[in-house]
Amino acid sequence: MEKSEAIAYTMTGGSGLHSYSKNSNFQMKSIGAAKELINKSIAEKLDVNIFSSSNTLRLADLGCAAGPNTFAAVQNIIDALEIKCRSEGKISQPPEFQVFFNDQASNDFNQLFTTLPPERRYFASGVPGSFYGRLFPRASLHFVHASHSLQMLSTVPKEVTDRKSPAWNKGRIHYSNSTNEVVKAYEAQYAKDMENFLKARAEEIVQGGLLAFVIPGRPSGAPHSEAFGNRTAELLGSCLIDMVDKGKISSENVDSFNLPAYYASPQDVEAVVKRNGYFSIETIEHLPQQMPRSKEFASALRAGMGGTLKKQFGEEILDEFFDLLYKKFEENLSFIFESGKAISLFVLLKRIVTE
Amino acid sequence: MEKSEAIAYTMTGGSGLHSYSKNSNFQMKSIGAAKELINKSIAEKLDVNIFSSSNTLRLADLGCAAGPNTFAAVQNIIDALEIKCRSEGKISQPPEFQVFFNDQASNDFNQLFTTLPPERRYFASGVPGSFYGRLFPRASLHFVHASHSLQMLSTVPKEVTDRKSPAWNKGRIHYSNSTNEVVKAYEAQYAKDMENFLKARAEEIVQGGLLAFVIPGRPSGAPHSEAFGNRTAELLGSCLIDMVDKGKISSENVDSFNLPAYYASPQDVEAVVKRNGYFSIETIEHLPQQMPRSKEFASALRAGMGGTLKKQFGEEILDEFFDLLYKKFEENLSFIFESGKAISLFVLLKRIVTE
Repeated sequence: MEKSEAIAYTMTGGSGLHSYSKNSNFQMKSIGAAKELINKSIAEKLDVNIFSSSNTLRLADLGCAAGPNTFAAVQNIIDALEIKCRSEGKISQPPEFQVFFNDQASNDFNQLFTTLPPERRYFASGVPGSFYGRLFPRASLHFVHASHSLQMLSTVPKEVTDRKSPAWNKGRIHYSNSTNEVVKAYEAQYAKDMENFLKARAEEIVQGGLLAFVIPGRPSGAPHSEAFGNRTAELLGSCLIDMVDKGKISSENVDSFNLPAYYASPQDVEAVVKRNGYFSIETIEHLPQQMPRSKEFASALRAGMGGTLKKQFGEEILDEFFDLLYKKFEENLSFIFESGKAISLFVLLKRIVTE
Repeated sequence: MEKSEAIAYTMTGGSGLHSYSKNSNFQMKSIGAAKELINKSIAEKLDVNIFSSSNTLRLADLGCAAGPNTFAAVQNIIDALEIKCRSEGKISQPPEFQVFFNDQASNDFNQLFTTLPPERRYFASGVPGSFYGRLFPRASLHFVHASHSLQMLSTVPKEVTDRKSPAWNKGRIHYSNSTNEVVKAYEAQYAKDMENFLKARAEEIVQGGLLAFVIPGRPSGAPHSEAFGNRTAELLGSCLIDMVDKGKISSENVDSFNLPAYYASPQDVEAVVKRNGYFSIETIEHLPQQMPRSKEFASALRAGMGGTLKKQFGEEILDEFFDLLYKKFEENLSFIFESGKAISLFVLLKRIVTE
């Protein structure tokens, strides 16, 4: 029923030193920054009639990882929905909430489930699978949320690792300083993935329901090379090249490795939403990112990418690689994290009422 | 929102030598035996009008463990529901299925999620928590199934491990050959747990929805001591006493250990269902169990109880204990597994329509 999961970027599970659950403070700040926008969205844009018949509100957090950020995000949404329901006074019985925590099947759901907030006021469930395919029944969700997950592509575009393709991305692991062919391959993959994402969500979200997501992106009109995410990717790439120069890994291994991530602009988002046709764009806002501390950011990257790098290059390089990354990041912070260019996008879409 | 999970009897996770996923063939036979009864239940007892409005059928399997048995059980149910929907011809669009796999939060959901059948025709989700409390929104489920899970109590009755109580169960780990006080404590715990179970399900299951469960039990009118489950428990207890005699474990450790399981008769079930008042009893049938091979049964017990015994008595005794159990089981098989007394109960309840 679901698309095959290509190279899933699964966050490091458990609760150990390099785990996502202990190293996701960077992403947490973004959830804090989005909180007011979510409150406003629910207060102003949500019509409570969409759930007055069932009296159960169904929420999903897509790309939830293993916690704890997802718990804070979900609690924000529920608090806002409760206020909305009370203020409208239309609801005879207080609604019940069912929350679906979604991530790849390889995500550490055991960690997620054993650390659920004991005092939660919702029924929790976990949904394994790629959000680029269907995950839920037709018209079953009222509010869908995704934070820092939709920048991950379903897969690396095939041609960029194909030596015979004009889009072969030799010596690089990302697109922002690559040839036009490579950039186009990434843009096409993003468009295709978002097409699948919106098609699936259009079926799953009730008419009038909301879809809110936060993605690390780039400002309107900004070139790819200015995005914080892309500058970080370039830095990662340069650390890998350094490791090649030191003889720690092979250049072929770097050539065959690319990051399946894309940092969108508001125009990118508008284009895919319009092409899909089932959602109205209610809000697209720039959310300034807070400059992370270098150590914190390197740890967050290790929690997010450690597993993938281990698979590609072997566990023995990890400590050295992330030490190097930390140092380079520290040295280049003001370039990588350029004020006004290091932004996230907060996007709010509403499922159009068609019948 | 959920009851605290006392000593959860969590099946051994993963896919290793002693895992539930590799040692649950014994329970699987029971799912096979129940298949025809489930088909008949759905064909004859289910009114498809209960889901014609939403067009999504929601199923739950309570106490699903880490697979694979739950996948077979769920597929049986979906096959039968699809036949029913087609035969009635009332459904304009083929229904979509959402399946909730439930078990304690300590269950190995990672194993469950990574081994979901790739060709499944349903949306899968996992729900962590005790089924003795609420797990789902009001009136959200159409068919609830539980196989070999409802014999597990939420907890060992407190008084049986209390040295000062008249119900102290000294030197024994179960109730069937114990004093009247111990038996009464177990019976009361069963009644209380089932009261909570049915209260929660009455809220969650739509009016007209079905609740089917299979429990290892005992025939109508049979004393506790005749149940296959109780005879097995007595055997376990005698192996522990042998380990005490050999100086491998302390008698205090055995005194403080009791099994949180109860083997019900049809009368027990009828009494709790009537007291609850929200379900009609559609079927209670004896399902003859097939005599297990000793090795298979000892392995199934290890997968089910290994973790608990390890916690109470230490890992180092496990191999010796289960070798001993296997030998005793082999020697006493015809007594323990007495034909006509070793039965499961298949119970089908329907949520009464009250409005």
